[in-house]
Amino acid sequence: MPLWHIYCPENAYSAEDKCALATRITDLYADVGLPRFYASVVFHELPKNSFFVGGKATNDFVRIWIDQIARATAPERRAWWLERVNTTLNPFARERGYRWEVHIDETPIDFWTIQGMKPPDPDSEAKKHWVKEDRPSAYT
Amino acid sequence: MPLWHIYCPENAYSAEDKCALATRITDLYADVGLPRFYASVVFHELPKNSFFVGGKATNDFVRIWIDQIARATAPERRAWWLERVNTTLNPFARERGYRWEVHIDETPIDFWTIQGMKPPDPDSEAKKHWVKEDRPSAYT
Amino acid sequence: MPLWHIYCPENAYSAEDKCALATRITDLYADVGLPRFYASVVFHELPKNSFFVGGKATNDFVRIWIDQIARATAPERRAWWLERVNTTLNPFARERGYRWEVHIDETPIDFWTIQGMKPPDPDSEAKKHWVKEDRPSAYT
Repeated sequence: MPLWHIYCPENAYSAEDKCALATRITDLYADVGLPRFYASVVFHELPKNSFFVGGKATNDFVRIWIDQIARATAPERRAWWLERVNTTLNPFARERGYRWEVHIDETPIDFWTIQGMKPPDPDSEAKKHWVKEDRPSAYT
Repeated sequence: MPLWHIYCPENAYSAEDKCALATRITDLYADVGLPRFYASVVFHELPKNSFFVGGKATNDFVRIWIDQIARATAPERRAWWLERVNTTLNPFARERGYRWEVHIDETPIDFWTIQGMKPPDPDSEAKKHWVKEDRPSAYT
Repeated sequence: MPLWHIYCPENAYSAEDKCALATRITDLYADVGLPRFYASVVFHELPKNSFFVGGKATNDFVRIWIDQIARATAPERRAWWLERVNTTLNPFARERGYRWEVHIDETPIDFWTIQGMKPPDPDSEAKKHWVKEDRPSAYT
């Protein structure tokens, strides 16, 4: 968590683009204190005639769907967060002439494991350790 | 929003089928007053041995997952809405001999942007303008 | 419902592996009394440079996202359920040297149909009939 799904036209992004965008997305969460490896980004390149907006086949649309953890973002901070998300996307969406749409869902924090482990609490020593090592490890 | 994901066997639907179904889905939301461009439909054609129902590989199943906005549908209207959804799907599911299953999730309305903009309130002038022009535009 | 999405590297699993894992997943839900055909599992094989963890392209990661029905799992049983989920996955994740992550979302029970029908209530005769026949059928 978070998990970003990016649905885009085929060949919209090069391998370098994808890596650069995934890194920007990772920075977004690292800036608020999460381990970098929490950020997963999946690119789904859609063949022609797979994506319809308003009933019309489209090849200039990038649709981003994000699953985050419930209660991590207080409702009053959602607009602020969305602005950060859109700023992150701008060089790969607006500035490339794509249309784009984003929505975020929230899922229960206690329904999540990494390597079979419940991730440590936000302010715990274990969490700091996960951030520092950038990998999950057993903790008590 | 709404975002429809249609997981189907490879070649289940022609390009014309997809366009026709996406248009029917768009009509569903236009009928309740949403701009047509709000309706996104993604077809995911699954190769053989990708989709299992009850542990068995299946090539006659269409699985529809829909993300809508929380609170847009009052709980007491959900059965009515699902009936409309299934009526929309019938010519491409039941009448073609496919098995099919639908589920809808609801995501927070304030966690959604189009072209970096928060969509206008339901009864606003801006919303009417978006409907009329069938595209997003800046508003105050 | 439930719907499991398994995002994995290309060729991570053979057709036999997929069937075996889908069967284990189905068992998980059959054990708690659900009809076997409720369990849908979709394998998404991701090409290289499609999946980034912490900004790095990865080809050893299996990401599992599960949609279940809201309120089916009481919050106090979530850890127990996740342990069962991870035990189910172990032969295909941990024991194969993959990194893996799981999260579960919950969606509204009254926003779900199979073959256009609302699934029967948990303790109903119709539900027992669906379990026994392992297929949906009309009920009153």
